[in-house]
Amino acid sequence: MVWNQARRAARMNPSIIREILKVTEKPGILSMAGGLPSADTFPVDALKAACDRVLSQAPREALQYAASEGFAPLREWVAARVATLGMQVKPDQVLITSGSQQGLDLVGKILCDAGAPVAVETPTYLGALQAFTPFEPLFTSLASDAEGPLPEAIAALPHDAPGTRFSYLLPNYQNPTGRVMGAKRRAEVVEASRRAGVPIVEDNPYGDLWFDEPPPAALSSLWPEGSLYLGSFSKVLTPGFRLGYLIAPPELYPKLLQAKQAADLHTPGFNQRVVHEVIRNGFLDDHIPSIRALYKANRDAMAEALQAYLPPGCEWQSPQGGMFFWIRLPAGLDAMALLPQAVEAGIAYVPGAAFYAHQPDARTLRLSFVTLTPDLIKEGVEKLGRLLHEALSLATEHAP
Amino acid sequence: MVWNQARRAARMNPSIIREILKVTEKPGILSMAGGLPSADTFPVDALKAACDRVLSQAPREALQYAASEGFAPLREWVAARVATLGMQVKPDQVLITSGSQQGLDLVGKILCDAGAPVAVETPTYLGALQAFTPFEPLFTSLASDAEGPLPEAIAALPHDAPGTRFSYLLPNYQNPTGRVMGAKRRAEVVEASRRAGVPIVEDNPYGDLWFDEPPPAALSSLWPEGSLYLGSFSKVLTPGFRLGYLIAPPELYPKLLQAKQAADLHTPGFNQRVVHEVIRNGFLDDHIPSIRALYKANRDAMAEALQAYLPPGCEWQSPQGGMFFWIRLPAGLDAMALLPQAVEAGIAYVPGAAFYAHQPDARTLRLSFVTLTPDLIKEGVEKLGRLLHEALSLATEHAP
Repeated sequence: MVWNQARRAARMNPSIIREILKVTEKPGILSMAGGLPSADTFPVDALKAACDRVLSQAPREALQYAASEGFAPLREWVAARVATLGMQVKPDQVLITSGSQQGLDLVGKILCDAGAPVAVETPTYLGALQAFTPFEPLFTSLASDAEGPLPEAIAALPHDAPGTRFSYLLPNYQNPTGRVMGAKRRAEVVEASRRAGVPIVEDNPYGDLWFDEPPPAALSSLWPEGSLYLGSFSKVLTPGFRLGYLIAPPELYPKLLQAKQAADLHTPGFNQRVVHEVIRNGFLDDHIPSIRALYKANRDAMAEALQAYLPPGCEWQSPQGGMFFWIRLPAGLDAMALLPQAVEAGIAYVPGAAFYAHQPDARTLRLSFVTLTPDLIKEGVEKLGRLLHEALSLATEHAP
Repeated sequence: MVWNQARRAARMNPSIIREILKVTEKPGILSMAGGLPSADTFPVDALKAACDRVLSQAPREALQYAASEGFAPLREWVAARVATLGMQVKPDQVLITSGSQQGLDLVGKILCDAGAPVAVETPTYLGALQAFTPFEPLFTSLASDAEGPLPEAIAALPHDAPGTRFSYLLPNYQNPTGRVMGAKRRAEVVEASRRAGVPIVEDNPYGDLWFDEPPPAALSSLWPEGSLYLGSFSKVLTPGFRLGYLIAPPELYPKLLQAKQAADLHTPGFNQRVVHEVIRNGFLDDHIPSIRALYKANRDAMAEALQAYLPPGCEWQSPQGGMFFWIRLPAGLDAMALLPQAVEAGIAYVPGAAFYAHQPDARTLRLSFVTLTPDLIKEGVEKLGRLLHEALSLATEHAP
């Protein structure tokens, strides 16, 4: 035993997401597990042309070390873009990150202390739990309904020292549940947060992926000084470039910037310039609607298949955007316990238990509807339905 | 005051490196400050062709989410490459990172605890101090000479609980001093580390940049189970792609991988594939010697200029590789205090004080010889010499 590991290392456990991504690499598996955008939406030609232009026009700058804040024109683009969500932001509040996962890591580093409470939705994004956990916060699970966290749960957050550091909220087509927070709920949540003195970390990777109408204004637009906002290019362009951004109140920006520099000096300048080159002239105005149309058709295909094949007693709501259905199985079934049989049958999903900070609901599971084509969605859900019917009849046989 | 920041945020201070990079962006400054590789060495055409090939041949894979460990063929390439440094490594010990700065952040996360000692050279790489500091280690400065840390300083490291977590060592053309550790010293340092039970984190960004003869075998080759190795593509290809790697003993790899996933899910798959496409068929065998030749000529130009223009009493050694001269000024001069006048005079350097964990030597400064051309190096050093001559005569006038 040469190495003496840090106390926080003991809290870090093998990731279910990562293990599942491995399963889905097996050929022949119909995976509805990973949160992978459809590769059909990647703008390959536009990216190829942009790589070429950047390396022709500014190779010395694109390939050199660069500023930790990010590429200035991209920061300006982001500041202008979030104005469409009601946010009034200056470019110097924008920090370009290596995916919004890195934004979560930086937030953890700057705001979490061992034993200080951090509030999360029930359930919440697994990657956020993983990002915050090394900094040893005390998670508080906010009681939540079909619109997200309840304002009264926020009002009841611990405010004695050390105080609740922040609430981590995903108002738009949340991962994993797909739920969206309505305008009235947003106002109530912000008001409760303001009264309780608990700031908001708002994560919005899916906001552009609405199907029939855009979501209400960002929480950050309602309480700018008390909100920190995370955005991403992963779901509207490509995750393989690892580009996201943080928008921080001026009070927090300098520390986040220092944490960013210590973490990786800066996000690849080449990637920032290529993405800026693609999007600078309104590319997304045409591109995002094409993603919405594709995902909406997939959502419809999965909704129809679930209706057709899942046994009675299963519960779900049809998501109004994003990438996921959230299914609750009938009593007696355990999604984690069934996963090996599912993989055996040639399908994969994510057991919902992974998304809870406390008291996991073993009957839940997450299905992505954007990775497979409608035909394969139908085939996958049919297999899932067969598996659940069998499991249910077994459970009934063994019931007392 | 809505936001309550983490205890560790108070330890993070504005970075001198970043502030200086800003100064060097001013037009007309002859900067010998930044550790920027020469942009003349960036293989623009090879990268352009590789971007095109990757986006033609594997766009869906290159633009999708990918495994946290890194792109398998690149990990295999790294494992084969470090065999030339005497290291016997399996590909599954290789973790691709977003620059080797991220490797330092992951090491800090996994190995540092508040108050647990971490040993560093005197002086050491500023970016490592920044990466480890948020995790609140107790830095121990190892007494060092022209070859690096003294074996007896390692033997004397605290080994009572919590024990020294690791020594952070840069044996090849160290940043900031440019010094290299000889073969005998390496053996002694490893032997002392083994006896003291203090593992080694070996950082080797500059090892390929030798001028007359390659450096001795890596420390990690002498004590594989007690060493963690960091490598980088920043100095031999391009820093703008942010690609580095960690090589870890099997005991540590799983935790580093979990920390990596929490930090940014994975390093951009596109960047990994492009770099692999460039280097897979021996590209570096021709490319690196051309960097060496360029940097050696620059080293010679700076050595000559220093000899010609610096006042008596300045001390330096001509580096045998890497990117930096380390200068010690005559008594009475303070490199930090002189920096504003230097910038006024149109030049920039890094005051050496930034590179010490304790008791900074205010008379030291670091000069990069790879960013400017030989003509501009001469011009910059001449200006530096004039400034130092003036400062010296002022110091003498005011001497008691």
